[in-house]
Amino acid sequence: MIGEISVEIPGQGLHEITARVADLVRQSGIQEGLCTVFLQHTSASLLIQENADPAARHDLERWLNRLVPENDPLYTHTQEGADDMPSHIKAALTAVSLAIPVAGGCLALGTWQGIYLWEHRRQRGRRRCVVHVGS
Amino acid sequence: MIGEISVEIPGQGLHEITARVADLVRQSGIQEGLCTVFLQHTSASLLIQENADPAARHDLERWLNRLVPENDPLYTHTQEGADDMPSHIKAALTAVSLAIPVAGGCLALGTWQGIYLWEHRRQRGRRRCVVHVGS
Amino acid sequence: MIGEISVEIPGQGLHEITARVADLVRQSGIQEGLCTVFLQHTSASLLIQENADPAARHDLERWLNRLVPENDPLYTHTQEGADDMPSHIKAALTAVSLAIPVAGGCLALGTWQGIYLWEHRRQRGRRRCVVHVGS
Repeated sequence: MIGEISVEIPGQGLHEITARVADLVRQSGIQEGLCTVFLQHTSASLLIQENADPAARHDLERWLNRLVPENDPLYTHTQEGADDMPSHIKAALTAVSLAIPVAGGCLALGTWQGIYLWEHRRQRGRRRCVVHVGS
Repeated sequence: MIGEISVEIPGQGLHEITARVADLVRQSGIQEGLCTVFLQHTSASLLIQENADPAARHDLERWLNRLVPENDPLYTHTQEGADDMPSHIKAALTAVSLAIPVAGGCLALGTWQGIYLWEHRRQRGRRRCVVHVGS
Repeated sequence: MIGEISVEIPGQGLHEITARVADLVRQSGIQEGLCTVFLQHTSASLLIQENADPAARHDLERWLNRLVPENDPLYTHTQEGADDMPSHIKAALTAVSLAIPVAGGCLALGTWQGIYLWEHRRQRGRRRCVVHVGS
């Protein structure tokens, strides 16, 4: 089964999509299999991270923003805004594709794992994921 | 087929799990397919790396420990210990899910590739991977 | 279906393999499914990145070369050349395995996404990917 998730993004940051992906798994009716979430963009990422303390996600974002700052004199690809080239680098350091086993009809996530769409651009926008659920 | 690998971890570092994953592939009886290893934790990673010279893995660990040190004043998520927030960041920069083709009934790894569970926390513990093998 | 892509590499840099992967998907005849590309090496990576402005890829390479320079006094694994240990680190920070959904018989890539083999070593050579296409 192939499905799609379209996410309205208010701006830079981590946006949880676990429930959206779990819905598609449920709709597939597959009991044992594999769910693959694929992001169709190059300046945002998919991330599995701690869903408990929001401070962990907050620190993660601040750390990556410090590692890959805007306005680095190294950048030549600057015509799409100061946040564009850092976004491509952040996407390359993280993931655009996540494969999660399905067991008992559910995503086999650990207790503290959530699935996040990590927007690296500053502006509002819409991002699209293609989801495959197979046995 | 869905299987599980539970790994006893003595502490921070790279722990090879190639043989454990290969066993599950053999048990599945699948000749041509895909094996997906998924780690159910957010402060450890899965890594495919050189299985020959241990110095390469040693340098890799030291390099990442230098990039993501403990006690960085940026961290606010500190109540679970000095090694906790660095572990989440390291996990975000690496992978929790690996998909490896199966050919001729075996993992289609390159000659020098091993599969490692990369523990980022310092304490002893147990980590769990869910493994899917499908055709 | 399991296929192989063997890529002649002129040296360090990003080499697009989108058309090669798309060919294998076409040959498989699969309309809805999942395509997994797996690189059998530990000093190169697979990357999905912007296929439009080459400056974005150029900046990405220069940024990673600055983050992971050659001749870092931390390295002990140096007998295979100054570019070897940085290559292992870069491979660990990026990906060796990419899963992309197949829809309507084609890779479900976004408009601006290309698939690249990112060679981290300096010398000419040949790299091999194993590709699985399943439903």
